[in-house]
Amino acid sequence: MRKTQKSSRRQPRDGGLTRRVLLTRAVGAAAITLSARGALAQDPSSTTSRPGPPPSALGTRAPAEQLKRTPTATSSRTPLQDLHGTMTPADLHYERHHGGVPAVDPRTYRLLVHGMVDRPLTFTLEDLKKFPATSRICFLECSGNLGRQGGERTTAQELCGLTSQSEWTGVRLATLFNEVGAASRATWFLAEGQDAAVMTRSIPLEPVMDEAMIAYAQNGEALRPEQGYPARLLLPGWEGNASVKWLRRLELADQPFMTREETSKYTDPLADGTARQFSFIMDARSVITSPSYPHTVQQGWVEIRGIAWSGRGRIRRVDISTDAGRTWTEAALQAPVLPKAHTRFRLLWRWDGRSTEILSRAIDETGYVQPEWSALQAARGRRTRYHQNPVTGWKIGTDGRVLFGIERVSA
Amino acid sequence: MRKTQKSSRRQPRDGGLTRRVLLTRAVGAAAITLSARGALAQDPSSTTSRPGPPPSALGTRAPAEQLKRTPTATSSRTPLQDLHGTMTPADLHYERHHGGVPAVDPRTYRLLVHGMVDRPLTFTLEDLKKFPATSRICFLECSGNLGRQGGERTTAQELCGLTSQSEWTGVRLATLFNEVGAASRATWFLAEGQDAAVMTRSIPLEPVMDEAMIAYAQNGEALRPEQGYPARLLLPGWEGNASVKWLRRLELADQPFMTREETSKYTDPLADGTARQFSFIMDARSVITSPSYPHTVQQGWVEIRGIAWSGRGRIRRVDISTDAGRTWTEAALQAPVLPKAHTRFRLLWRWDGRSTEILSRAIDETGYVQPEWSALQAARGRRTRYHQNPVTGWKIGTDGRVLFGIERVSA
Repeated sequence: MRKTQKSSRRQPRDGGLTRRVLLTRAVGAAAITLSARGALAQDPSSTTSRPGPPPSALGTRAPAEQLKRTPTATSSRTPLQDLHGTMTPADLHYERHHGGVPAVDPRTYRLLVHGMVDRPLTFTLEDLKKFPATSRICFLECSGNLGRQGGERTTAQELCGLTSQSEWTGVRLATLFNEVGAASRATWFLAEGQDAAVMTRSIPLEPVMDEAMIAYAQNGEALRPEQGYPARLLLPGWEGNASVKWLRRLELADQPFMTREETSKYTDPLADGTARQFSFIMDARSVITSPSYPHTVQQGWVEIRGIAWSGRGRIRRVDISTDAGRTWTEAALQAPVLPKAHTRFRLLWRWDGRSTEILSRAIDETGYVQPEWSALQAARGRRTRYHQNPVTGWKIGTDGRVLFGIERVSA
Repeated sequence: MRKTQKSSRRQPRDGGLTRRVLLTRAVGAAAITLSARGALAQDPSSTTSRPGPPPSALGTRAPAEQLKRTPTATSSRTPLQDLHGTMTPADLHYERHHGGVPAVDPRTYRLLVHGMVDRPLTFTLEDLKKFPATSRICFLECSGNLGRQGGERTTAQELCGLTSQSEWTGVRLATLFNEVGAASRATWFLAEGQDAAVMTRSIPLEPVMDEAMIAYAQNGEALRPEQGYPARLLLPGWEGNASVKWLRRLELADQPFMTREETSKYTDPLADGTARQFSFIMDARSVITSPSYPHTVQQGWVEIRGIAWSGRGRIRRVDISTDAGRTWTEAALQAPVLPKAHTRFRLLWRWDGRSTEILSRAIDETGYVQPEWSALQAARGRRTRYHQNPVTGWKIGTDGRVLFGIERVSA
């Protein structure tokens, strides 16, 4: 929405730092004066004196690293502030359900494809796995991914933890539609889940046929029950709700079905009294995951880290402001930068101990610029609940404590 | 080693199949004759009649999808035949230990860097995390990744399950070496673990400085204890043992240290009586993961699936033979093809019901061709245990049962 930039400079390689600066300012590592090898050998809690446990059938997390999501009755959020890189462990992928998690028996599971087709067919899970397979690393995000803030004590998880990233594997939707002989006049299809909400969404064929898949695997293994086991629709870049989980039926038609969820919920009231329907694509967004509440920073060099993503393709650039939006500096993007995927950004910043605000702003390959909250509100009005992707950030006090509070967002 | 090709043709898009062929030959999906919606509504085991459990703090695997590794006293192997895509869930990453899994306290953890440096330093885990971070998707593989075969009943997991893939995050080794002021005459360093084996390996600086990191995160979260928690060396493309886990010490020097492990174990006796030392790089390799023992295939179209990887860079091509090596066909590679990373390959094949053998052969971007067992033995002799990467494959009987046995490999 806001396309002008105040100022932008490219970060030099290595952040323009000498290693000496890093050493004394940021790390404060201890210089060794005594005999180094002697110090190691004298360690009374040495792990070298007796063998540890042998390999196991399944690995475990370290006792001090017990990550978790934050469940409510209808959702649980990924702990973005605790994660590194771009992949989300499957058991930490966000959840958002409308009727809980159904227990689907893979032996009796069936997917029906019917409607405007030459002949309707049902597919078993084994049928789906026999078709030519495809894999894809991409993000999923709930279009209601803004809220549950607790004021200044809001974490990145609470702010926008309804997004996660996986490598998905399945069969292309185009393969199944060819199989049933989709009619040329079929322009929409209904995707129906077998949860207690009987989640139903209408999807236009043409925009999704290149990339849509019926996914049965996530991060190498079978889908987890809470992610739609044994099979779900996957629409890269589109609002998560449209990637219907526990998929049991696809019906082809020549118009949308106007289902309960897509009229009562996933339609956005606008400022002028009209409504925006079928706002499928997730706009570009970013969040600084470190430092963020409840971190504390120390004076000197701090690496600002976060993730950015866009439902329209690749992230082209992420700008960081460390002076509450007055000036912006381009962050480094971790390669490979994949389309419709969480992209890790990093920027070295020297904090001088003064109170300030740090913000991030994503720009995708279409040129779309992540908007500020005021611009979003002017365009969408105050009643719209979904597809809120404002620039956000963190306040840093003179004591180094990090608090949320750049944008007065409300759920 | 073998660089000539017998015949090779590129697989046409969609495998040159009509969808009707796929339908009748491979999938055998059931055509629907009764009212489809009626059939769904009458399902007595419907999951739609009552809400399922709400979201949880941690996700779980479905009861029917309980994957596991196969532990012995010293290793456990990734179930390659059960995985899709390229990423390995962290709890299924292979393990190979020489002194079990030490329990390292992250609060007292220290990494010492000393030797030919301006000043020796110790780093805490928090120190390491404060440095500029980098992430990398790559494979790890034990150089002893061939063995434990049970004859014809050998699975892909037993054949070569000592390889796995993760997204690793950490600090570049070059950053730490700059920090301590590595001497220009330092050409090697020792990496020492704090397990009961006190694993020590000598690593030459120059070949690894671009890509080596001290990793503290794997697939987004903290390293698992069995993967070197809280920090390990990571040398993409090099034999797994050199990526020393539970890393406690790096000592810079101007020659290798000739440690016990690298002289007694990780040195390869050759046919001519000499020995090959410091054979760090993992050569290109591939394995067909489906179909593989104990799968059974049915007549008609079968997608042959597997993974290929090379320690020297990207996989350029994977050839498949479905006639015991007489002719070869190029498989499709799943994008993105990343350097030093497991790469998924797939090829549609129509099985005519006759007994045959299927094989895979990887070619990397340097032009290296995965060798046959006979060529490997001629070059290395019969006593070498490590870096065995022969072409392997599977026998298929007239009953469709898949058995291992193309190459008479022995551990």
